Amino acid sequence: MEWKNLDQLDHYHQLQEYAGKVSLKTVMSGENGASRVAAYQVGMGGGLTYNYASKQVDDQILSCLCGLAKEAGLSDKYQELYNGAVINTGEKRRVLHQLTRGQIGDDVIADGVNKRAFYVEQQTRIAEFARNVHEGKIVNEKGEKFTTAVQIGIGGSDLGPRAMYLSLENWARKNGCFHMEAKFISNVDPDDAASVLASVDPSRCIFILVSKSGTTLETLTNEAFVKDALKNAGLDASRHMIAVTSETSPLASSSDYLAAFFMDDYIGGRYSSTSAVGGAVLSLAFGPDVFARFLNGAAEGDALANEKDPLKNAAMLDALIGVYERNILGYPATAVLPYSQALSRFPAHLQQLDMESNGKSVNRFGEPVDYPTGPVIFGEPGTNGQHSFYQLLHQGTDVVPLQFIGFRNNQTGVDVDIQGSTSQQKLCANVAAQIMAFACGKADENRNKNFEGNRPSSIIIGDQLTPEALGALLSHFENKVMFQGFLWNLNSFDQEGVQLGKILAKRVLAHDTEGALKAYSDLLNI
Amino acid sequence: MEWKNLDQLDHYHQLQEYAGKVSLKTVMSGENGASRVAAYQVGMGGGLTYNYASKQVDDQILSCLCGLAKEAGLSDKYQELYNGAVINTGEKRRVLHQLTRGQIGDDVIADGVNKRAFYVEQQTRIAEFARNVHEGKIVNEKGEKFTTAVQIGIGGSDLGPRAMYLSLENWARKNGCFHMEAKFISNVDPDDAASVLASVDPSRCIFILVSKSGTTLETLTNEAFVKDALKNAGLDASRHMIAVTSETSPLASSSDYLAAFFMDDYIGGRYSSTSAVGGAVLSLAFGPDVFARFLNGAAEGDALANEKDPLKNAAMLDALIGVYERNILGYPATAVLPYSQALSRFPAHLQQLDMESNGKSVNRFGEPVDYPTGPVIFGEPGTNGQHSFYQLLHQGTDVVPLQFIGFRNNQTGVDVDIQGSTSQQKLCANVAAQIMAFACGKADENRNKNFEGNRPSSIIIGDQLTPEALGALLSHFENKVMFQGFLWNLNSFDQEGVQLGKILAKRVLAHDTEGALKAYSDLLNI
Repeated sequence: MEWKNLDQLDHYHQLQEYAGKVSLKTVMSGENGASRVAAYQVGMGGGLTYNYASKQVDDQILSCLCGLAKEAGLSDKYQELYNGAVINTGEKRRVLHQLTRGQIGDDVIADGVNKRAFYVEQQTRIAEFARNVHEGKIVNEKGEKFTTAVQIGIGGSDLGPRAMYLSLENWARKNGCFHMEAKFISNVDPDDAASVLASVDPSRCIFILVSKSGTTLETLTNEAFVKDALKNAGLDASRHMIAVTSETSPLASSSDYLAAFFMDDYIGGRYSSTSAVGGAVLSLAFGPDVFARFLNGAAEGDALANEKDPLKNAAMLDALIGVYERNILGYPATAVLPYSQALSRFPAHLQQLDMESNGKSVNRFGEPVDYPTGPVIFGEPGTNGQHSFYQLLHQGTDVVPLQFIGFRNNQTGVDVDIQGSTSQQKLCANVAAQIMAFACGKADENRNKNFEGNRPSSIIIGDQLTPEALGALLSHFENKVMFQGFLWNLNSFDQEGVQLGKILAKRVLAHDTEGALKAYSDLLNI
Repeated sequence: MEWKNLDQLDHYHQLQEYAGKVSLKTVMSGENGASRVAAYQVGMGGGLTYNYASKQVDDQILSCLCGLAKEAGLSDKYQELYNGAVINTGEKRRVLHQLTRGQIGDDVIADGVNKRAFYVEQQTRIAEFARNVHEGKIVNEKGEKFTTAVQIGIGGSDLGPRAMYLSLENWARKNGCFHMEAKFISNVDPDDAASVLASVDPSRCIFILVSKSGTTLETLTNEAFVKDALKNAGLDASRHMIAVTSETSPLASSSDYLAAFFMDDYIGGRYSSTSAVGGAVLSLAFGPDVFARFLNGAAEGDALANEKDPLKNAAMLDALIGVYERNILGYPATAVLPYSQALSRFPAHLQQLDMESNGKSVNRFGEPVDYPTGPVIFGEPGTNGQHSFYQLLHQGTDVVPLQFIGFRNNQTGVDVDIQGSTSQQKLCANVAAQIMAFACGKADENRNKNFEGNRPSSIIIGDQLTPEALGALLSHFENKVMFQGFLWNLNSFDQEGVQLGKILAKRVLAHDTEGALKAYSDLLNI
């Protein structure tokens, strides 16, 4: 396997000749535009389709991107990854989150264990635990059923599971599989834990402590905060807490917990939604069957990401177009715009997934790279964003590529018909309209009302945000980010950039500071 | 008053000579760093301080920025604005949101009315209404007290009020002035209204319909959605709804509402949190006295923004440094990072305020500008963000300027001491540590663990997030954005960029489409 920097690849230099070649105003006009919408799409699994008609590409650029994919060995690297190679070279770890939801390639034996079997075993244990809770076999001190699951975790132990929970909450209520409400405590700000605790009946809560190492400052602090509150309420904390951690962590065998479920070092936090990290809370909230359907959607996405032809591989194609936009067209940010209120926190999850994976300046050999890597990722649900930051997206001085997401049907089934259309139709009409407004713009003599157009977007379309669709959506972005990491020649699986702050924070708390750090600490009364 | 483009100003060209002059690694090291932290700060009102020690400026650059402020006539333009000039030239409107919270300059008489008196009158009417609700003089059909306020609005009628509500919710509970819970319905996605309605007892709700024009698609649709639900529950909608709108809107005198409170065309949505748009929901939730304290904080900020010397004017200084970063140093985005869970949605509000105001490519005369204007704004609370996108901020290929916000004390007063420090101390230690990690970095032979440093940030510090502090914080950013608009010679008060999408969406719903727009509409089953 050859690992080369992006600018060592011939197709990258060829691509530079195409910059500015495609005018969306031209190619998306008239019947040609309709043909592009029909042609430029590919299935993603989970009933989803990735449509890239409004990206600044044409057949020639796509062909060059396919060449780039081959030259960079994207499929081979993906295959190495899922077959268990030590892709995370910095930390000398395999990258195995995909085994939590299926097996595309070989058995992966690590530390003497078949890892797929290990992850499935954890799912089975969680499923049994969740069913026992739902059926009232595991109850509180008074024999009452638990009604609420409260996840204590931060970063990947919070953002992904929280986004997934919110994505399926209404769907589960509508479909008769809403078992328990879930809440989340993440921030070390004590007001976070205090306000969540004030909103629940602690005697009916199961707290899920999630920390791979068992040493995360925020999570251990919030655990202590919660234990304090339980004690003050006369409750036995060990009857209200479970742990999700690695088998070697101090939490793994503690009698402080009702049960412990395991992950390992081969699953990074931001890739852990389909592991026990997401599995415990989602199985408690919606039942193991819904969690299994979510995993099936992700497995379907993973299998499609194994297609060698980028035109049949949505994740790979999205990655290639993104690199074209970032490195050839020079766009610094990407907006994620789901037209679905249920996906309100999905952009925050992608923000971590993408920016933490590929926000790096050195390649996998520790050498500085000479090109931009991961962009800033941000977003809010539409139509809300339309009444907020879309002004800049339409008429600002920077072009920001857009990732729309839309569904034909809503989740609750409740809707209202006003002036001849439902709310869901209005929602969908808006996303279609926005794509075209961005692509083609509209000339106006009053330049203040002029829209330049030529602002690229893609859209992911599905029938409904179901567990399968959500799984495929998650898998798409995980695989996209990994393919982009391969193209930029980065290690997308470590996060050394978060270390220095932790070290300095410890010094502040130990009052071992001087100079400006002491001055700031004094201003903050620490 | 002279309105010139930024690149027509002499000091702008002088500034370009200073690019790269200040190495934060150098100036923030040792005792010099401590001196900068002590010297480079200015009061903001509401007990807040703006500290810019870790920005890439020195006395020479600051002096040039002061020259730029004078050359651009920032103080004169601010004075013109608050004295009622038609600053919003595109829409031929005055810009008067500051009168909702004080009067710095002359009386402003418009349409035959003293506008300050008009805004105060609305506050008084809202205060009386809120007291009547709290005291049980205005009740539901069964004579029961209302317990919940549900705001129906989008954009500025949602983001600002929602962010302010969340900012003070815990504070109000702690300080005995939490009267009613508030909820918000914004998205035209029917699942938004459906899930909010499922979470409340509609018979105990007051719905606040907020739309200046009375014609906003999303808001009217959600009003119909809610009325439908109220009717199905056997309730009389007109006993559960109030309107916040302009006096000329169809909602103003409708018998469908318990009461109507007024705003006008001189207050843009994104600047409306201190008008009736924020006033109704915040007065109902926390009482009129808390809302008045919030206004006082904003008034204090506005008065400080009237200081001619930028070194005594935090909003102006922040604006100047931001333009230096955007136009001289070429940074494309800014992150807002509040170390306070209560400010969880404050970045989303700033995203609208900033990006909708200054995300523009033509100057106030409709001529294209030749320089970048408003940056992308995004952010999440710390320490959460540290476990997410900070990797890119520390080690990514783009430099992103950072706006930290921190408070010495939390709001709930609840805390826990672990390993010799409270959660609040850990929170503050982290923000101090981050600033220094970004500024000075840390050399490491393993380049993967190397931190380049030289990543600029500022921090706003307060004792506690009180109503006054929140008001000053809001005012700071409103005034900063306006000053930047003056520097870029933009009209920061219109939003023509949102129009085209609305027009095309109507065509989709009328099935009046062809080409790609029709193709997308078909894919979405509209």
